[in-house]
Amino acid sequence: MLSSEQQKIVRNVAKKSLNKIDELLISQKLPNNGFSEGLLTQLLESLSAADSNNFTDSVGGGEREGRIVCSLVERLHLGLSHGIGRSGNIAETQPKALGSSMLNSLANSMALEVLHVLGLESCKKALILPVCTGMALTLSLLTLKQLRPSTKYVIFSRIDQKSCLKSIFAAGLIPIIVNQTPTNPGTFCELKINESNLEEAISSIKTSEILCILSTTSCFAPRVPDSLILNGTFARKNGFFHLVNNAYGLQSPSIILQLSQALNSNLIDIFVQSTDKNFQTPVGGSIISSSNKEMVIKVGKLYPGRASAIPSRDFLLTVLNLGKNGLLKMMEERNQVYAFLVEKMREFAAEIGEEIIEPEGNEISLVEECKKLGGILFTRYKVTGTRVIISNGTVTNINGIEFKNFGSHTNVSIVPYITVAAGVGMTKNEVENIVQRLRECFCDIKN
Amino acid sequence: MLSSEQQKIVRNVAKKSLNKIDELLISQKLPNNGFSEGLLTQLLESLSAADSNNFTDSVGGGEREGRIVCSLVERLHLGLSHGIGRSGNIAETQPKALGSSMLNSLANSMALEVLHVLGLESCKKALILPVCTGMALTLSLLTLKQLRPSTKYVIFSRIDQKSCLKSIFAAGLIPIIVNQTPTNPGTFCELKINESNLEEAISSIKTSEILCILSTTSCFAPRVPDSLILNGTFARKNGFFHLVNNAYGLQSPSIILQLSQALNSNLIDIFVQSTDKNFQTPVGGSIISSSNKEMVIKVGKLYPGRASAIPSRDFLLTVLNLGKNGLLKMMEERNQVYAFLVEKMREFAAEIGEEIIEPEGNEISLVEECKKLGGILFTRYKVTGTRVIISNGTVTNINGIEFKNFGSHTNVSIVPYITVAAGVGMTKNEVENIVQRLRECFCDIKN
Amino acid sequence: MLSSEQQKIVRNVAKKSLNKIDELLISQKLPNNGFSEGLLTQLLESLSAADSNNFTDSVGGGEREGRIVCSLVERLHLGLSHGIGRSGNIAETQPKALGSSMLNSLANSMALEVLHVLGLESCKKALILPVCTGMALTLSLLTLKQLRPSTKYVIFSRIDQKSCLKSIFAAGLIPIIVNQTPTNPGTFCELKINESNLEEAISSIKTSEILCILSTTSCFAPRVPDSLILNGTFARKNGFFHLVNNAYGLQSPSIILQLSQALNSNLIDIFVQSTDKNFQTPVGGSIISSSNKEMVIKVGKLYPGRASAIPSRDFLLTVLNLGKNGLLKMMEERNQVYAFLVEKMREFAAEIGEEIIEPEGNEISLVEECKKLGGILFTRYKVTGTRVIISNGTVTNINGIEFKNFGSHTNVSIVPYITVAAGVGMTKNEVENIVQRLRECFCDIKN
Amino acid sequence: MLSSEQQKIVRNVAKKSLNKIDELLISQKLPNNGFSEGLLTQLLESLSAADSNNFTDSVGGGEREGRIVCSLVERLHLGLSHGIGRSGNIAETQPKALGSSMLNSLANSMALEVLHVLGLESCKKALILPVCTGMALTLSLLTLKQLRPSTKYVIFSRIDQKSCLKSIFAAGLIPIIVNQTPTNPGTFCELKINESNLEEAISSIKTSEILCILSTTSCFAPRVPDSLILNGTFARKNGFFHLVNNAYGLQSPSIILQLSQALNSNLIDIFVQSTDKNFQTPVGGSIISSSNKEMVIKVGKLYPGRASAIPSRDFLLTVLNLGKNGLLKMMEERNQVYAFLVEKMREFAAEIGEEIIEPEGNEISLVEECKKLGGILFTRYKVTGTRVIISNGTVTNINGIEFKNFGSHTNVSIVPYITVAAGVGMTKNEVENIVQRLRECFCDIKN
Repeated sequence: MLSSEQQKIVRNVAKKSLNKIDELLISQKLPNNGFSEGLLTQLLESLSAADSNNFTDSVGGGEREGRIVCSLVERLHLGLSHGIGRSGNIAETQPKALGSSMLNSLANSMALEVLHVLGLESCKKALILPVCTGMALTLSLLTLKQLRPSTKYVIFSRIDQKSCLKSIFAAGLIPIIVNQTPTNPGTFCELKINESNLEEAISSIKTSEILCILSTTSCFAPRVPDSLILNGTFARKNGFFHLVNNAYGLQSPSIILQLSQALNSNLIDIFVQSTDKNFQTPVGGSIISSSNKEMVIKVGKLYPGRASAIPSRDFLLTVLNLGKNGLLKMMEERNQVYAFLVEKMREFAAEIGEEIIEPEGNEISLVEECKKLGGILFTRYKVTGTRVIISNGTVTNINGIEFKNFGSHTNVSIVPYITVAAGVGMTKNEVENIVQRLRECFCDIKN
Repeated sequence: MLSSEQQKIVRNVAKKSLNKIDELLISQKLPNNGFSEGLLTQLLESLSAADSNNFTDSVGGGEREGRIVCSLVERLHLGLSHGIGRSGNIAETQPKALGSSMLNSLANSMALEVLHVLGLESCKKALILPVCTGMALTLSLLTLKQLRPSTKYVIFSRIDQKSCLKSIFAAGLIPIIVNQTPTNPGTFCELKINESNLEEAISSIKTSEILCILSTTSCFAPRVPDSLILNGTFARKNGFFHLVNNAYGLQSPSIILQLSQALNSNLIDIFVQSTDKNFQTPVGGSIISSSNKEMVIKVGKLYPGRASAIPSRDFLLTVLNLGKNGLLKMMEERNQVYAFLVEKMREFAAEIGEEIIEPEGNEISLVEECKKLGGILFTRYKVTGTRVIISNGTVTNINGIEFKNFGSHTNVSIVPYITVAAGVGMTKNEVENIVQRLRECFCDIKN
Repeated sequence: MLSSEQQKIVRNVAKKSLNKIDELLISQKLPNNGFSEGLLTQLLESLSAADSNNFTDSVGGGEREGRIVCSLVERLHLGLSHGIGRSGNIAETQPKALGSSMLNSLANSMALEVLHVLGLESCKKALILPVCTGMALTLSLLTLKQLRPSTKYVIFSRIDQKSCLKSIFAAGLIPIIVNQTPTNPGTFCELKINESNLEEAISSIKTSEILCILSTTSCFAPRVPDSLILNGTFARKNGFFHLVNNAYGLQSPSIILQLSQALNSNLIDIFVQSTDKNFQTPVGGSIISSSNKEMVIKVGKLYPGRASAIPSRDFLLTVLNLGKNGLLKMMEERNQVYAFLVEKMREFAAEIGEEIIEPEGNEISLVEECKKLGGILFTRYKVTGTRVIISNGTVTNINGIEFKNFGSHTNVSIVPYITVAAGVGMTKNEVENIVQRLRECFCDIKN
Repeated sequence: MLSSEQQKIVRNVAKKSLNKIDELLISQKLPNNGFSEGLLTQLLESLSAADSNNFTDSVGGGEREGRIVCSLVERLHLGLSHGIGRSGNIAETQPKALGSSMLNSLANSMALEVLHVLGLESCKKALILPVCTGMALTLSLLTLKQLRPSTKYVIFSRIDQKSCLKSIFAAGLIPIIVNQTPTNPGTFCELKINESNLEEAISSIKTSEILCILSTTSCFAPRVPDSLILNGTFARKNGFFHLVNNAYGLQSPSIILQLSQALNSNLIDIFVQSTDKNFQTPVGGSIISSSNKEMVIKVGKLYPGRASAIPSRDFLLTVLNLGKNGLLKMMEERNQVYAFLVEKMREFAAEIGEEIIEPEGNEISLVEECKKLGGILFTRYKVTGTRVIISNGTVTNINGIEFKNFGSHTNVSIVPYITVAAGVGMTKNEVENIVQRLRECFCDIKN
């Protein structure tokens, strides 16, 4: 038997956990220190117990009562089966699923707080949608379109990822492509757009038919993050909305800085980021955010019906597990790994008589001029995620629009190159591994 | 030590599991008998091991490499972190996530087979989207809209669930409301629409601006499932698409029959159903399906970017757990529970001098005329999902359109009533419980 | 966002769980209604958090600090790695593992309460040992032997299960075998011992060298449970200890009754039962119990060092999951299934011209005279656990002692028969299945 | 859809896992590289599926059919409920639980291989018992006692851990205490025994009544590991058995060396080690081993009845997870951490004007002369596992035998000291932490 003092210690441990959970439910604030797995499990069990399908004394006579027939599925959801949202609004509370609703509310609160912690204090509201960045952009565009139903064009600072383009087409809108231009034509240099590119792009279009500018921050070098000040100012001047695709930009201090300045100057209507790319959760969610509360609320209201709770749950668990300190540490480590990647790639480039570009304001990826690397990097050397770009003038047709050199963000032909990124969660060991494999692969090709 | 014979038996058990998994991967066919939880776990572990982030010899240099930082999250996904789809197409294979892609492919194959097993043999393709019915309708509408960009109206056979209406508005389209009409005005009777209602509704609209008819099958009595033959024929005659909201219709033999006939006559372009409402999975997925393969492919191609794998995973696990036999048994049991509910509600109605309506073709819910039941059914008696409808002429404004008596599917005032549904998974015990609580609640109100 | 009222509801759910856990920690009482899986998980997480290896601010400099290197193992134990007990006493508290110690204490308290609930109110102390019945008997014998070091014999009312015999030999003691005798020699009848059998068995042995009588309650018919009154009275009269092997006897009302009477009359020193056989846990634990507290304490003190916490954990989880009501219901269902088995076996016996014996006081198993069934029942018909007993005079030598017709509990040859048991957890469906397979097997053999 | 090539890749991943499992089942060999958690899960699921209670076509009519009523318990065992062993022998196969039996067999095979890998090639058989070291010693003593029933004494090279002593008493035997003697009396020095101590200890006892010498290897300094050559030679000369308590000795290269030499010279009958202390599993298991196969087999046969499978399972999972390479690395890391601990403690000792002892052949713990540290190290500084030993002549009575200065392994009074151990799994960071806390604690006491 435990002494009464020992018994008290054990009871206090249980109470301490309850207190942490209760404090979280009240404050909806990210704790400084992360929650353990055990505490996260207790949190989920508590929320699950607050859904009516898990009540012992409740009985359901509707068409959706949270029943789960496969016990493995039930376990993988800890009995939280109701999803999030109500028919009218994805952020709304379901009376018969208060636990799931609380999970949703907590995740959205945490999303806003995380943006603040990362430096975006002017952000006023955040909403996690259980769709990825592409679909989140579509929903944002559809929301903006409801506000200006007579528009049909989106100014698109070209980025050659299909889902960005598709997000415009899916919304029933038409992109006006603004090609990136080399900063020092004829050399291996950065790619960006400037105001005259924007002016030129809309010269033949009725301003009243233009819905918004879609800017992109996080991207692969040598394209640089769009200047949100430039694009935002241009949008405001012309009366367009300004929508920002900030897919994996939360891990870059310079993108955060840009965003922060633009938000302070009220130059952005909605900015969107991925939960998986920034926070190492499984694919499936994104954060809609704005310095204008109403905009985010409108996206929530546009969303028809309920939705999966999983992306919100995974985000919530992840940031609670990290805590404020762990989150900042994770981001700081990425910065260090990025610096290490630059160093190692520069060394390797020197070895092979090439050079790297590490464009201003693009801290996520860097490129290296490299004519000869091909598909074997993936198949033989098991390096995933790097891309070799060769501008040979090929034309790609996407939903009726033609792109020359798709993948390079510009119709102008540039030298072949390879991109490498330092995404959050990468380790120095992985950097060394990649550079070593690049080296070996390069040797192979030469011989 | 085991004898060599005993050793062989153990090895064969392991091989038998592998064979079942291998057979599934090749045939993509639903087994007759369900897989055990152990076998499902082995399947998921096998698929997880085929994703590059789980390789021991792979290293990632991209911005999305499937890293998961919270181990509880990792466990709840069994390491399957890449989601489904590629930027261009949600049904496409991701080369670096072959396990997740296979899961996606299997789930879609199973979805089609399940539709066949349930009686919809003419269905030619099915696609699971990680969004609920409302959003799936929006995506279907956006897909149809891409085919006829100059249209803007949707003929809407009125059903008073907000997410149905919202699905139209979210797509940037405008509903033309066709009110349900009583079959025997002035009495407590069924509600339906007929051809003249449709004719009248579009009389003042340019046919060329009408995109489609949106029919609804599964609904709460006294509204009856739309006649898919009537609406489909009307759509074909006028050159409109015909989109069917079959949210929880797969559990109703008479809706299946209607759908089957309409599909055979090629009267439907896309029909959409919920995974959670029909198969007892957690909220989050829907099945897009058609007798026209191309239509489903187009929806898949519209979807911009990747998406959560969870709704596909949950559907796959559930139907594999049931097997063909278990699935049919589950549906058959629902039919029996429905019949039992009818019987018990009829008894109760007789007791209190009321009557029930069990409309033709609507086997999911039934109503009972009941003037006096209010909110206490949920709060005091813990009955969820039943709805008490009182037509008092209140007007509800949704996105600028006014609905009288929202909830009753018609502007015509009818007697107060309560709805009860027999959703799949309900038990006879639950039926008895509900009816008993109704009885008690009724007593309470009277006294 | 949830309303403040809704928020309060969710918080209260979490608090309600904590309250249930706190109440349990204080009262150490079995709740009437079972704990859900979620609540059990929360309990384990709370206990785990109270072990020092899971503290964030603790650091270990000893040779055993609860570290676990394999994360799958950690998960299967929820981080509870310290086991139970201290070097001096298996029931003692480990200061650095208060959570594990509390688990141990709770399990032991529950064990005692469960015995009370099942009708053994005179039992005064219970201790779960992480060893099965056989080894628990050995430990009991060793404890008794410490009290009377000069003894060396154990009077053994013959039951032909090797582990019972081995438990005596393992303790370094020698069994005096008392053969069961037919109540009606020459017929198919019950087997039991009487006082003259006992007298005769010890006639040539010095009383001062006899440690105890080892009685057995739960057994397969036609052997009947030992009369605990008879054996206990005999033991008391001669100054022997009385140890009772009650392996799976807690599920039998008539054995409970016997035990209860013998305990009330102080005729038993220690009685031992299996956790898996009585409570449907995995194999591994037993309950040592007595109406004499000191006896149980002595067994706990004999046990050298720490031990696995798993059998205690599994027992605790199981009885908490059942609750008092579930436990009684589980036992009551077994009684019904037993009656059903009797009925079905009687029918079958009549069909084949045989008879069954359902001996007085043996409600667990029954036998059927059956000459011809052999090993194919297991190999071909997949029936496990039934035993076909054929007395052909074969002699089996166990640790130097010879047994004629080992398996039949007696040297006297009796007719061949098959035994079938209705163990707790068996269903009526399983009964039907077994009888049907017996029928088919019998047909096969005849043809 | 996946291409047929991609499909083949996925299928091959599943087959590769099966092949690894099949290879393991056949060879029963420890793989060089560890199994992933996913593969371990698949292995357990395969074994579980081979137990009859998990067959779909099996039905049980015995008193123990592996039924589990609490689903959380079932999950924590993955359905493996039958335990290990049969009534006659804990190493034997249960025909109706071939999966559990295979697990048992694998664990025992791995145990032997692990001993070989760690340098004990002369070991010929190993058996995992689901009891800790203390109880395993008792079972070993009982086995030896069965071979020489007329003996009653055990020569005990004094080590002051209660469970060691209790293991002798529990077996019904009497220890002959051989006190450790200082190597340099009057100074802070090593403690050991020599041949004359042994001779003296048995001088007044009949040799024929002495069962064995019980040596201890792993222990806290300043006691040194017993010389197994010395004790073994003495045992052989006098015809005693030699039993070795090697509790956590597998992590010490010098103990391994001693064991290896003694085994090669056939000087040991049984040696026993803890699974948790050497391999970082939860508390509960030990390995019985010998260069004489028969001895280990006899212990297995002594064990009466079945037993929990968990300690075997945990050991198996852990060593498979590590693989041969991981296991050797884990041990090598411990050596480095030990060296680091010595360095840091020496620094600290110098700071406070004290010294450390790092006795010859005792690489696990070291001591530091320290008069003033008390209980606050645990309560205030949260350091667990260190022990402060103060010889003040107190006499402790254990089972009737008196020990002066219990805890110090000798009746001779020595200076106060504190012990610190570097157990496997400890990190350098933990070492720094402990030394820092010692420093702070020391400051506190001084002030």
